[in-house]
Amino acid sequence: MRIVIVGGVAGGASAAARARRLSESATITIFERGKYISFANCGLPYFIGGDIKEQGSLLVTSPEMLKNRFNIDVQTEKEVTSINPIAKTIAVKDLKTGVDYTVGYDKLILSPGAAPIKPQLEGIGLPGIHVLRDIPDMERIHALINKPKLRVTIVGGGYIGLEMAEALIHRGCDVRLVEATAQVMPPLDPEMAAFLHTELSSHGVMLLRNVSVTGFTKEKDVITINLSNGKKMLSDLVVLAVGVRPETALAQSARLRLGPTGAIAVNSQMRTSDPDIYAVGDACEVINLPLAGPARIPLAGPANRQGRIAADAIFGKKTAFRGTQGTSIVRLFTITAGMTGANEKQLKQAGIDYEKVYIHPMNHASYYPGAKPLHLKLLFNKKDGKVLGAQIVGQEGADKRIDVLSMAIQASMTVYDLEEAELAYAPPFGSAKDPVNFAGFVAANTLRGDAPICHTDSIPGKAFLLDVRTEKEHESGCIPGSYLIPVDELRSRLSEVPEKSIIVAYCKVGLRGYIAQRILMDNGFTCLNLSGGFTTYSLVDNPKKA
Amino acid sequence: MRIVIVGGVAGGASAAARARRLSESATITIFERGKYISFANCGLPYFIGGDIKEQGSLLVTSPEMLKNRFNIDVQTEKEVTSINPIAKTIAVKDLKTGVDYTVGYDKLILSPGAAPIKPQLEGIGLPGIHVLRDIPDMERIHALINKPKLRVTIVGGGYIGLEMAEALIHRGCDVRLVEATAQVMPPLDPEMAAFLHTELSSHGVMLLRNVSVTGFTKEKDVITINLSNGKKMLSDLVVLAVGVRPETALAQSARLRLGPTGAIAVNSQMRTSDPDIYAVGDACEVINLPLAGPARIPLAGPANRQGRIAADAIFGKKTAFRGTQGTSIVRLFTITAGMTGANEKQLKQAGIDYEKVYIHPMNHASYYPGAKPLHLKLLFNKKDGKVLGAQIVGQEGADKRIDVLSMAIQASMTVYDLEEAELAYAPPFGSAKDPVNFAGFVAANTLRGDAPICHTDSIPGKAFLLDVRTEKEHESGCIPGSYLIPVDELRSRLSEVPEKSIIVAYCKVGLRGYIAQRILMDNGFTCLNLSGGFTTYSLVDNPKKA
Repeated sequence: MRIVIVGGVAGGASAAARARRLSESATITIFERGKYISFANCGLPYFIGGDIKEQGSLLVTSPEMLKNRFNIDVQTEKEVTSINPIAKTIAVKDLKTGVDYTVGYDKLILSPGAAPIKPQLEGIGLPGIHVLRDIPDMERIHALINKPKLRVTIVGGGYIGLEMAEALIHRGCDVRLVEATAQVMPPLDPEMAAFLHTELSSHGVMLLRNVSVTGFTKEKDVITINLSNGKKMLSDLVVLAVGVRPETALAQSARLRLGPTGAIAVNSQMRTSDPDIYAVGDACEVINLPLAGPARIPLAGPANRQGRIAADAIFGKKTAFRGTQGTSIVRLFTITAGMTGANEKQLKQAGIDYEKVYIHPMNHASYYPGAKPLHLKLLFNKKDGKVLGAQIVGQEGADKRIDVLSMAIQASMTVYDLEEAELAYAPPFGSAKDPVNFAGFVAANTLRGDAPICHTDSIPGKAFLLDVRTEKEHESGCIPGSYLIPVDELRSRLSEVPEKSIIVAYCKVGLRGYIAQRILMDNGFTCLNLSGGFTTYSLVDNPKKA
Repeated sequence: MRIVIVGGVAGGASAAARARRLSESATITIFERGKYISFANCGLPYFIGGDIKEQGSLLVTSPEMLKNRFNIDVQTEKEVTSINPIAKTIAVKDLKTGVDYTVGYDKLILSPGAAPIKPQLEGIGLPGIHVLRDIPDMERIHALINKPKLRVTIVGGGYIGLEMAEALIHRGCDVRLVEATAQVMPPLDPEMAAFLHTELSSHGVMLLRNVSVTGFTKEKDVITINLSNGKKMLSDLVVLAVGVRPETALAQSARLRLGPTGAIAVNSQMRTSDPDIYAVGDACEVINLPLAGPARIPLAGPANRQGRIAADAIFGKKTAFRGTQGTSIVRLFTITAGMTGANEKQLKQAGIDYEKVYIHPMNHASYYPGAKPLHLKLLFNKKDGKVLGAQIVGQEGADKRIDVLSMAIQASMTVYDLEEAELAYAPPFGSAKDPVNFAGFVAANTLRGDAPICHTDSIPGKAFLLDVRTEKEHESGCIPGSYLIPVDELRSRLSEVPEKSIIVAYCKVGLRGYIAQRILMDNGFTCLNLSGGFTTYSLVDNPKKA
């Protein structure tokens, strides 16, 4: 069996190692266009930022190691230029010598990845405009930022854009981030992304939202960036981080079917439309769970699992890729944003009948020193309570809760399951009622009708807005037009609440609002609790807001 | 509706607040024997140790707050001495005035907790011998440990014993821990508890295992502790932490049924054998998942959920307590031990056909600074791969993985699900193949027959022990009688491996052992991989070991 793998990072390297573990007799060859195989591409920004000191530590393995340990033949700086699926051969160009040659295969695994998008803009090819995909890209940027106060403009606020913003601030650059949409980190909903906007600004990143780049010019060493708002920005360096495009040229050379997203279509065994060709990683299309639709979700975890599965499939093992729910995480200075499953934008678009709740609990027992708030948005099916998605921004413990909720989604658990979830508690780690339980309580109370909620964008027009916080809190900021009755005084001041209005109660985070709501509902009032309270309200960009 | 609650901590306070949220008209009264209600009992050791500076921060709420916010009548220093279930009354003694009186109820919720066990030993009542259950206990110990180099002996190595050991070392005491069994932290299996033994010793705690206390004498201010090994130990202070016993006296006064464990029997609505009496928290018996048997598992999380469920049941809400799997966690100096589900001791006793694997991965990408090893033991059903239990010892990220695995057990997930689990990855938080995935890979490879394993206590008698580490590793310690062939040389040295023997391959943690095993198996050898490698081997106390 001759197994040929195109691309030696993440998915490709995983497939090769797994294939060898399944067969000592197979011939396994990896062709990698670049100089390095199996490098830690997720680590590139951290080397630039200085967290990672040794470039060598990014090299997870080497051709020698793959040869010695796995008897895998690694051919670097060899570009596969086309596939002949009838003859079952690939055309290879040796990038060092320029020599072209042909190699046969029995099974071919494509792991070409995705390339940074370079939009068709005037001046896009000017020197000083960089992308960050591989180690040579990283080396180039790293070598250029040693000057103090270097003006660096990052275009695009996704993972790479944010990680680069952090890295470049750490290195003393004057950093600007230009984002064409209203928010950074597109998998988050806008009100959750608001925390990232604040974090960027408070660490000195100049953030421009709703502004796109229309072109570049360069004079001497200075790049002028033309912006859609008519302004110009001077920059010494530009990092383009506007997303990636699956590398499908090779697949197209073999007339492999592409999916509706433009990536390579595969079945759950990662097999393409050609029975002897597999594709894994960022170049292929996956099923997005729980939306059940095709998607491109370029993440390292799924790529690694896909590589393993492709090798399993070749050797007749019964494993299947289940799709991905986009579970991911990004650290930005002092905060962490995690996300899993569908976001609200996607649920709306898919027409799924969802509800959402917001909570703002502490990451561990508040009486234990160092407790820090988590901000959690939970999305769930309005009918059966099934968890559909979650977004968390916080510090320590944010990663834990997003993983717990990711497992809940994978296991088709409901908000009722979250109420009963048993999580490890000791004061340094959590609370007897964990944030995950709290999210379940709030969501289940809503679905059971015990505590109906509303949101900033769905406060009924003629509602009586009731602030149940303290006078001091009310005076330091409140929803315009709201009436103050602190929750502890509510029972004795019920006569001040209009009987025929819909009451919308709110507090700081939603807990006192809920207690007030229960008092009111049990006294015959109609009352909604504003989910997430004034904290969530303050995050939402809403024209209805004063 | 008159709801009377006995005991105002954790379960009792949760029940009261939930009951009020469900009904404004109910009369809700809490009787608490102690001076404080709703205090953070899990925080007591951390106040003694100095992490928590303000005693007031341990008071989660106050009678005034419960009155103002929830209209709950809290009666502290009132002991409920008996129940008359026919008349539906309780007898109450006012501990301040000595006056006895009777109170009627419609529904009664018992939350009396569990009392520290004081074994019937000579001198057990001597001054200087303390338990730690409540704030007055804490105050007493706190006041006594201000002298430098105070000799404190802790009897018992469970949660409280370990947390007190840490606290007292932090306060400069000379700490000894006497444990009657071979290991501390009984929910862990012994080889995992071994990490805690090392941690105790390396932080200056003198640990005596397999030694019990036979009695105490006291002369002047010095307590002499007589030990089962015939030795005596001098101590200025003794902390008894040998476990707790459910407070069932009240329940017995009402002839409520106790379960086989001696705790109060309840159904899934937390109702006792009397239809108007509920019991929650440490005094009641629960179903231990996944063993499906009755158990006493005194933990704060379940107690809080049970309080909520009892109130729900009283008001006809359909929620049910699902049982507990004992998910818990303890921090000991620099390490953390987490556990969930069944341990190996329990599975053996229950006659369940389980298998186990050990892994020792890093908590996050090893190329990102600060990666630290996690030690993970996974227990699963040998037939269907269902996850039955997990134990983790490590530093950062141990709490996250135990919670993820707890969710997996709650959702009846299998090791195949762990292989495919999608967890959030960025270099500071995890790896593209998370430790949870790895545990799944190893377990599933075993169940599929691709990589059969053995353990330190099940190495076949005539096996050929093959060390596949480097020469340097081999020389710094190996399994006696093992033969060295580094994995990278194995293919060229196959002739050195005896064809007819069972080969047991091992490396440091199990990964190279697995690669070697696959090479051997594919070449026709019979080979087992030693799970967890030399690292796990070194943890196990085994008479077979040299």
